[in-house]
Amino acid sequence: MENSNLLQQVEFIKEIDKLKYIQRKTKLFNSDRCENDAEHSWHLAMMTIILAEHANQALDILKVLKMVLIHDIVEIDAGDTFIYDTTKNHDNAEEELLAAKRIFGILPANQAKEFIEIWVEFEDGFTEEAKFARSMDRFEPLLQNTSNNGGTWAEFNVSYDKVYNKKKVIEKGSSTIWDYAEKLLGDSVEKGILKK
Amino acid sequence: MENSNLLQQVEFIKEIDKLKYIQRKTKLFNSDRCENDAEHSWHLAMMTIILAEHANQALDILKVLKMVLIHDIVEIDAGDTFIYDTTKNHDNAEEELLAAKRIFGILPANQAKEFIEIWVEFEDGFTEEAKFARSMDRFEPLLQNTSNNGGTWAEFNVSYDKVYNKKKVIEKGSSTIWDYAEKLLGDSVEKGILKK
Repeated sequence: MENSNLLQQVEFIKEIDKLKYIQRKTKLFNSDRCENDAEHSWHLAMMTIILAEHANQALDILKVLKMVLIHDIVEIDAGDTFIYDTTKNHDNAEEELLAAKRIFGILPANQAKEFIEIWVEFEDGFTEEAKFARSMDRFEPLLQNTSNNGGTWAEFNVSYDKVYNKKKVIEKGSSTIWDYAEKLLGDSVEKGILKK
Repeated sequence: MENSNLLQQVEFIKEIDKLKYIQRKTKLFNSDRCENDAEHSWHLAMMTIILAEHANQALDILKVLKMVLIHDIVEIDAGDTFIYDTTKNHDNAEEELLAAKRIFGILPANQAKEFIEIWVEFEDGFTEEAKFARSMDRFEPLLQNTSNNGGTWAEFNVSYDKVYNKKKVIEKGSSTIWDYAEKLLGDSVEKGILKK
Protein backbone atom coordinates (compact mmCIF):
# COMPACT_ATOMS: atom_id res chain seq x y z
CA MET A 1 0.00 0.00 0.00
CA GLU A 2 2.76 2.43 0.87
CA ASN A 3 3.62 2.74 -2.78
CA SER A 4 5.26 6.14 -3.00
CA ASN A 5 5.10 6.21 -6.81
CA LEU A 6 1.34 5.76 -6.62
CA LEU A 7 0.94 8.54 -4.05
CA GLN A 8 2.88 10.96 -6.26
CA GLN A 9 0.87 9.88 -9.29
CA VAL A 10 -2.43 10.46 -7.47
CA GLU A 11 -1.26 13.96 -6.54
CA PHE A 12 -0.53 14.63 -10.21
CA ILE A 13 -3.94 13.23 -11.26
CA LYS A 14 -5.60 15.70 -8.87
CA GLU A 15 -3.42 18.62 -9.99
CA ILE A 16 -4.16 18.24 -13.70
CA ASP A 17 -7.91 18.40 -13.02
CA LYS A 18 -7.32 22.17 -13.22
CA LEU A 19 -6.91 21.85 -17.00
CA LYS A 20 -10.73 21.58 -17.17
CA TYR A 21 -10.98 25.22 -16.06
CA ILE A 22 -8.61 26.68 -18.67
CA GLN A 23 -10.81 28.29 -21.31
CA ARG A 24 -9.70 28.60 -24.90
CA LYS A 25 -10.81 31.36 -27.24
CA THR A 26 -12.32 28.93 -29.76
CA LYS A 27 -15.86 27.68 -29.33
CA LEU A 28 -17.28 24.17 -29.61
CA PHE A 29 -18.68 23.18 -33.01
CA ASN A 30 -21.81 25.17 -33.92
CA SER A 31 -21.79 26.69 -30.47
CA ASP A 32 -21.25 29.80 -28.36
CA ARG A 33 -19.62 27.85 -25.55
CA CYS A 34 -15.83 28.11 -25.19
CA GLU A 35 -13.86 24.89 -25.25
CA ASN A 36 -11.62 24.09 -22.31
CA ASP A 37 -8.15 22.59 -22.55
CA ALA A 38 -9.14 19.11 -21.30
CA GLU A 39 -11.90 18.81 -23.91
CA HIS A 40 -9.52 20.12 -26.57
CA SER A 41 -6.84 17.60 -25.59
CA TRP A 42 -9.34 14.73 -25.74
CA HIS A 43 -10.47 15.84 -29.19
CA LEU A 44 -6.88 16.01 -30.48
CA ALA A 45 -6.25 12.49 -29.15
CA MET A 46 -9.30 11.21 -31.03
CA MET A 47 -8.19 13.04 -34.18
CA THR A 48 -4.70 11.57 -33.87
CA ILE A 49 -6.05 8.02 -33.79
CA ILE A 50 -8.45 8.61 -36.65
CA LEU A 51 -6.25 10.70 -38.94
CA ALA A 52 -2.85 9.05 -38.43
CA GLU A 53 -3.21 7.25 -41.77
CA HIS A 54 -2.76 10.62 -43.50
CA ALA A 55 0.58 11.42 -41.84
CA ASN A 56 3.48 12.22 -44.18
CA GLN A 57 5.67 9.67 -42.41
CA ALA A 58 5.14 6.58 -40.30
CA LEU A 59 4.55 7.61 -36.68
CA ASP A 60 4.94 6.34 -33.16
CA ILE A 61 1.23 6.89 -32.42
CA LEU A 62 1.59 6.33 -28.69
CA LYS A 63 4.09 9.17 -28.52
CA VAL A 64 1.82 11.49 -30.53
CA LEU A 65 -1.03 10.64 -28.16
CA LYS A 66 1.11 11.47 -25.15
CA MET A 67 2.02 14.78 -26.79
CA VAL A 68 -1.52 15.90 -27.53
CA LEU A 69 -2.84 14.71 -24.15
CA ILE A 70 -0.23 16.69 -22.19
CA HIS A 71 0.61 19.58 -24.55
CA ASP A 72 -1.53 22.18 -22.75
CA ILE A 73 -0.96 21.10 -19.14
CA VAL A 74 1.58 23.94 -18.73
CA GLU A 75 -1.35 26.34 -19.18
CA ILE A 76 -2.51 25.44 -15.66
CA ASP A 77 0.23 27.84 -14.54
CA ALA A 78 0.99 29.86 -17.67
CA GLY A 79 -2.56 30.36 -19.02
CA ASP A 80 -3.86 30.09 -22.56
CA THR A 81 -2.25 32.42 -25.10
CA PHE A 82 -4.42 33.25 -28.08
CA ILE A 83 -2.57 32.38 -31.26
CA TYR A 84 -3.53 35.64 -33.04
CA ASP A 85 -2.85 37.86 -30.03
CA THR A 86 -0.75 40.77 -31.32
CA THR A 87 -0.22 42.41 -27.93
CA LYS A 88 2.14 39.64 -26.84
CA ASN A 89 4.94 38.00 -28.71
CA HIS A 90 3.06 34.68 -28.18
CA ASP A 91 6.25 33.47 -26.69
CA ASN A 92 5.88 32.77 -23.01
CA ALA A 93 8.31 29.89 -23.38
CA GLU A 94 10.14 30.58 -20.14
CA GLU A 95 6.95 30.69 -18.07
CA GLU A 96 5.77 27.49 -19.73
CA LEU A 97 9.02 25.67 -19.04
CA LEU A 98 8.77 26.59 -15.36
CA ALA A 99 5.20 25.29 -15.39
CA ALA A 100 6.28 22.02 -17.01
CA LYS A 101 8.94 21.53 -14.38
CA ARG A 102 6.59 22.26 -11.50
CA ILE A 103 3.59 20.23 -12.70
CA PHE A 104 5.33 17.21 -14.25
CA GLY A 105 7.72 17.38 -11.32
CA ILE A 106 4.90 16.13 -9.08
CA LEU A 107 5.34 12.72 -10.76
CA PRO A 108 8.02 10.13 -9.90
CA ALA A 109 11.37 11.27 -11.34
CA ASN A 110 11.46 8.95 -14.38
CA GLN A 111 7.95 9.96 -15.46
CA ALA A 112 8.62 13.65 -14.80
CA LYS A 113 11.66 13.44 -17.07
CA GLU A 114 9.75 11.63 -19.81
CA PHE A 115 6.84 14.08 -19.78
CA ILE A 116 9.05 17.18 -19.80
CA GLU A 117 11.01 15.74 -22.73
CA ILE A 118 7.86 14.91 -24.68
CA TRP A 119 6.44 18.36 -24.03
CA VAL A 120 9.71 20.02 -25.18
CA GLU A 121 9.73 17.80 -28.28
CA PHE A 122 6.17 18.96 -29.07
CA GLU A 123 7.11 22.60 -28.57
CA ASP A 124 10.23 22.30 -30.76
CA GLY A 125 8.22 20.65 -33.53
CA PHE A 126 11.14 18.94 -35.26
CA THR A 127 10.29 15.24 -35.05
CA GLU A 128 7.61 13.56 -37.18
CA GLU A 129 5.54 12.95 -34.06
CA ALA A 130 5.73 16.60 -33.03
CA LYS A 131 4.87 17.74 -36.57
CA PHE A 132 1.78 15.58 -36.65
CA ALA A 133 0.68 16.53 -33.11
CA ARG A 134 1.06 20.21 -34.03
CA SER A 135 -0.97 19.72 -37.20
CA MET A 136 -3.82 18.29 -35.11
CA ASP A 137 -3.57 21.30 -32.78
CA ARG A 138 -4.04 23.67 -35.74
CA PHE A 139 -6.65 21.60 -37.58
CA GLU A 140 -9.23 21.34 -34.77
CA PRO A 141 -9.82 25.12 -34.35
CA LEU A 142 -9.90 25.51 -38.14
CA LEU A 143 -12.79 23.03 -38.26
CA GLN A 144 -14.45 24.80 -35.33
CA ASN A 145 -14.17 28.26 -36.87
CA THR A 146 -15.56 27.12 -40.22
CA SER A 147 -18.54 25.59 -38.37
CA ASN A 148 -19.05 28.81 -36.40
CA ASN A 149 -19.31 31.40 -39.20
CA GLY A 150 -15.67 32.33 -38.86
CA GLY A 151 -15.49 31.97 -35.07
CA THR A 152 -12.39 33.63 -33.65
CA TRP A 153 -11.31 34.85 -37.12
CA ALA A 154 -14.44 36.99 -37.31
CA GLU A 155 -14.52 37.85 -33.60
CA PHE A 156 -10.94 39.16 -33.53
CA ASN A 157 -10.84 40.38 -37.14
CA VAL A 158 -7.98 38.12 -38.23
CA SER A 159 -7.07 38.25 -41.92
CA TYR A 160 -6.76 35.33 -44.33
CA ASP A 161 -2.99 35.80 -44.64
CA LYS A 162 -2.42 35.55 -40.90
CA VAL A 163 -4.63 32.49 -40.62
CA TYR A 164 -3.03 30.89 -43.66
CA ASN A 165 0.49 31.36 -42.25
CA LYS A 166 -0.44 29.82 -38.90
CA LYS A 167 -2.32 26.93 -40.48
CA LYS A 168 0.40 26.06 -42.98
CA VAL A 169 2.09 24.16 -40.16
CA ILE A 170 -0.49 21.43 -40.86
CA GLU A 171 1.38 20.59 -44.07
CA LYS A 172 4.45 19.46 -42.10
CA GLY A 173 2.38 16.73 -40.48
CA SER A 174 0.13 15.79 -43.37
CA SER A 175 0.00 17.16 -46.91
CA THR A 176 -3.35 15.39 -47.41
CA ILE A 177 -4.95 17.19 -44.46
CA TRP A 178 -3.30 20.45 -45.53
CA ASP A 179 -4.82 20.18 -49.04
CA TYR A 180 -8.20 19.85 -47.40
CA ALA A 181 -7.53 22.65 -44.88
CA GLU A 182 -6.35 24.99 -47.64
CA LYS A 183 -9.59 24.39 -49.52
CA LEU A 184 -11.62 25.11 -46.37
CA LEU A 185 -9.77 28.43 -45.98
CA GLY A 186 -10.53 29.33 -49.60
CA ASP A 187 -14.19 28.39 -49.13
CA SER A 188 -14.28 30.54 -45.98
CA VAL A 189 -13.14 33.59 -47.97
CA GLU A 190 -15.82 32.91 -50.61
CA LYS A 191 -18.47 32.61 -47.90
CA GLY A 192 -17.31 35.92 -46.40
CA ILE A 193 -16.39 34.45 -43.00
CA LEU A 194 -12.67 35.10 -43.49
CA LYS A 195 -11.39 38.40 -44.93
CA LYS A 196 -8.68 38.46 -47.57
CA MET B 1 -8.40 16.59 -52.02
CA GLU B 2 -11.35 14.34 -52.80
CA ASN B 3 -10.19 11.95 -50.14
CA SER B 4 -13.42 10.25 -49.12
CA ASN B 5 -11.86 8.69 -46.00
CA LEU B 6 -10.89 12.16 -44.80
CA LEU B 7 -14.37 13.56 -45.42
CA GLN B 8 -15.96 10.77 -43.38
CA GLN B 9 -13.37 11.24 -40.64
CA VAL B 10 -14.09 14.97 -40.45
CA GLU B 11 -17.81 14.22 -40.10
CA PHE B 12 -16.99 11.91 -37.20
CA ILE B 13 -14.73 14.53 -35.59
CA LYS B 14 -17.65 16.99 -35.67
CA GLU B 15 -20.17 14.44 -34.38
CA ILE B 16 -18.16 13.46 -31.31
CA ASP B 17 -17.94 17.10 -30.21
CA LYS B 18 -21.32 16.33 -28.62
CA LEU B 19 -19.54 14.29 -25.93
CA LYS B 20 -18.59 17.64 -24.36
CA TYR B 21 -22.25 18.22 -23.48
CA ILE B 22 -22.87 14.89 -21.74
CA GLN B 23 -22.83 15.62 -18.01
CA ARG B 24 -21.81 13.00 -15.48
CA LYS B 25 -23.11 12.87 -11.93
CA THR B 26 -19.62 13.16 -10.41
CA LYS B 27 -18.08 16.55 -9.83
CA LEU B 28 -14.59 17.83 -10.60
CA PHE B 29 -12.07 17.60 -7.76
CA ASN B 30 -12.92 19.92 -4.86
CA SER B 31 -15.71 21.39 -6.93
CA ASP B 32 -19.47 21.73 -7.42
CA ARG B 33 -19.16 21.61 -11.20
CA CYS B 34 -20.19 18.36 -12.93
CA GLU B 35 -17.64 16.70 -15.15
CA ASN B 36 -18.53 16.04 -18.77
CA ASP B 37 -17.68 12.89 -20.69
CA ALA B 38 -14.93 14.46 -22.82
CA GLU B 39 -13.10 15.76 -19.75
CA HIS B 40 -13.57 12.41 -18.02
CA SER B 41 -12.18 10.54 -21.05
CA TRP B 42 -9.13 12.82 -21.19
CA HIS B 43 -8.49 12.24 -17.50
CA LEU B 44 -8.72 8.45 -17.89
CA ALA B 45 -6.25 8.61 -20.78
CA MET B 46 -3.79 10.52 -18.60
CA MET B 47 -4.32 8.06 -15.74
CA THR B 48 -3.72 5.14 -18.10
CA ILE B 49 -0.36 6.51 -19.18
CA ILE B 50 0.71 7.36 -15.66
CA LEU B 51 -0.57 4.28 -13.83
CA ALA B 52 0.10 1.53 -16.39
CA GLU B 53 3.16 0.43 -14.40
CA HIS B 54 0.77 -0.87 -11.70
CA ALA B 55 -1.20 -3.14 -14.05
CA ASN B 56 -1.45 -6.82 -13.04
CA GLN B 57 -0.29 -7.89 -16.49
CA ALA B 58 1.70 -6.35 -19.34
CA LEU B 59 -0.63 -4.23 -21.48
CA ASP B 60 -1.01 -2.96 -25.01
CA ILE B 61 -1.17 0.65 -23.81
CA LEU B 62 -2.27 2.03 -27.16
CA LYS B 63 -5.32 -0.22 -27.06
CA VAL B 64 -6.17 0.81 -23.48
CA LEU B 65 -5.90 4.45 -24.56
CA LYS B 66 -8.26 3.86 -27.47
CA MET B 67 -10.70 2.19 -25.06
CA VAL B 68 -10.78 4.98 -22.50
CA LEU B 69 -10.88 7.71 -25.15
CA ILE B 70 -13.92 6.19 -26.91
CA HIS B 71 -15.69 4.27 -24.09
CA ASP B 72 -18.37 6.89 -23.46
CA ILE B 73 -19.01 8.04 -27.05
CA VAL B 74 -22.15 5.86 -27.17
CA GLU B 75 -23.60 8.18 -24.51
CA ILE B 76 -24.06 10.83 -27.21
CA ASP B 77 -27.15 8.80 -28.18
CA ALA B 78 -27.78 6.64 -25.12
CA GLY B 79 -27.08 9.18 -22.34
CA ASP B 80 -25.14 8.76 -19.12
CA THR B 81 -26.43 6.10 -16.74
CA PHE B 82 -25.56 6.68 -13.11
CA ILE B 83 -23.77 3.64 -11.73
CA TYR B 84 -25.80 3.60 -8.46
CA ASP B 85 -29.15 4.24 -10.13
CA THR B 86 -31.56 1.69 -8.67
CA THR B 87 -34.54 2.65 -10.83
CA LYS B 88 -32.91 1.14 -13.92
CA ASN B 89 -31.18 -2.13 -14.37
CA HIS B 90 -28.12 -0.13 -15.49
CA ASP B 91 -28.18 -2.27 -18.57
CA ASN B 92 -29.02 -0.24 -21.62
CA ALA B 93 -26.71 -2.46 -23.64
CA GLU B 94 -28.98 -2.67 -26.67
CA GLU B 95 -29.38 1.10 -26.91
CA GLU B 96 -25.63 1.54 -26.53
CA LEU B 97 -24.84 -1.00 -29.25
CA LEU B 98 -27.15 0.85 -31.65
CA ALA B 99 -25.37 4.07 -30.70
CA ALA B 100 -21.96 2.50 -31.33
CA LYS B 101 -23.06 1.32 -34.75
CA ARG B 102 -24.50 4.70 -35.72
CA ILE B 103 -21.69 6.89 -34.43
CA PHE B 104 -18.64 4.76 -35.27
CA GLY B 105 -20.44 3.93 -38.53
CA ILE B 106 -19.74 7.50 -39.69
CA LEU B 107 -16.06 6.48 -40.05
CA PRO B 108 -14.57 4.57 -43.01
CA ALA B 109 -15.57 0.88 -42.76
CA ASN B 110 -12.26 -0.47 -41.42
CA GLN B 111 -12.12 2.14 -38.66
CA ALA B 112 -15.80 1.70 -37.80
CA LYS B 113 -15.19 -2.03 -37.38
CA GLU B 114 -12.11 -1.48 -35.21
CA PHE B 115 -13.81 1.04 -32.93
CA ILE B 116 -16.95 -1.06 -32.44
CA GLU B 117 -14.79 -4.07 -31.59
CA ILE B 118 -12.70 -2.09 -29.11
CA TRP B 119 -15.83 -0.66 -27.48
CA VAL B 120 -17.37 -4.16 -27.17
CA GLU B 121 -14.10 -5.47 -25.72
CA PHE B 122 -14.19 -2.71 -23.10
CA GLU B 123 -17.82 -3.45 -22.25
CA ASP B 124 -17.17 -7.19 -21.95
CA GLY B 125 -14.21 -6.59 -19.68
CA PHE B 126 -12.47 -9.91 -20.27
CA THR B 127 -9.09 -8.91 -21.74
CA GLU B 128 -6.25 -7.42 -19.70
CA GLU B 129 -6.65 -4.14 -21.59
CA ALA B 130 -10.37 -3.97 -20.83
CA LYS B 131 -9.78 -4.83 -17.17
CA PHE B 132 -7.27 -2.03 -16.78
CA ALA B 133 -9.42 0.48 -18.71
CA ARG B 134 -12.38 -0.38 -16.49
CA SER B 135 -10.27 0.02 -13.37
CA MET B 136 -9.37 3.55 -14.47
CA ASP B 137 -13.08 4.27 -15.08
CA ARG B 138 -13.87 3.27 -11.47
CA PHE B 139 -10.82 4.87 -9.86
CA GLU B 140 -11.30 8.43 -11.14
CA PRO B 141 -14.77 9.01 -9.54
CA LEU B 142 -13.52 7.38 -6.31
CA LEU B 143 -10.75 9.99 -6.13
CA GLN B 144 -13.27 12.73 -6.98
CA ASN B 145 -15.76 11.66 -4.32
CA THR B 146 -13.12 11.44 -1.60
CA SER B 147 -12.00 14.99 -2.51
CA ASN B 148 -15.62 16.20 -2.43
CA ASN B 149 -16.73 15.09 1.06
CA GLY B 150 -18.33 11.96 -0.31
CA GLY B 151 -19.61 13.52 -3.55
CA THR B 152 -22.22 11.31 -5.21
CA TRP B 153 -22.03 8.75 -2.35
CA ALA B 154 -23.33 11.37 0.06
CA GLU B 155 -25.62 13.08 -2.47
CA PHE B 156 -27.42 9.86 -3.41
CA ASN B 157 -27.03 8.12 -0.06
CA VAL B 158 -25.07 5.15 -1.40
CA SER B 159 -23.81 2.69 1.20
CA TYR B 160 -20.26 1.44 1.69
CA ASP B 161 -21.19 -2.09 0.55
CA LYS B 162 -22.62 -0.90 -2.75
CA VAL B 163 -19.63 1.31 -3.42
CA TYR B 164 -17.22 -1.43 -2.40
CA ASN B 165 -18.81 -3.96 -4.76
CA LYS B 166 -18.68 -1.57 -7.71
CA LYS B 167 -15.12 -0.49 -6.98
CA LYS B 168 -13.78 -4.00 -6.51
CA VAL B 169 -13.54 -4.18 -10.31
CA ILE B 170 -10.37 -2.10 -9.90
CA GLU B 171 -8.60 -5.19 -8.52
CA LYS B 172 -8.94 -7.00 -11.85
CA GLY B 173 -6.82 -4.31 -13.50
CA SER B 174 -4.39 -3.57 -10.69
CA SER B 175 -4.13 -5.09 -7.24
CA THR B 176 -1.76 -2.27 -6.24
CA ILE B 177 -4.31 0.42 -7.10
CA TRP B 178 -7.07 -1.65 -5.46
CA ASP B 179 -5.11 -1.86 -2.18
CA TYR B 180 -4.91 1.93 -2.22
CA ALA B 181 -8.57 2.34 -3.24
CA GLU B 182 -9.73 -0.02 -0.50
CA LYS B 183 -7.86 2.03 2.04
CA LEU B 184 -9.45 5.25 0.72
CA LEU B 185 -12.89 3.64 1.15
CA GLY B 186 -12.08 2.67 4.73
CA ASP B 187 -10.81 6.19 5.44
CA SER B 188 -14.02 7.60 3.96
CA VAL B 189 -16.10 5.59 6.43
CA GLU B 190 -13.94 6.83 9.30
CA LYS B 191 -14.35 10.42 8.13
CA GLY B 192 -18.11 9.92 7.93
CA ILE B 193 -18.37 10.69 4.21
CA LEU B 194 -19.39 7.10 3.35
CA LYS B 195 -21.96 5.19 5.44
CA LYS B 196 -21.40 1.60 6.43
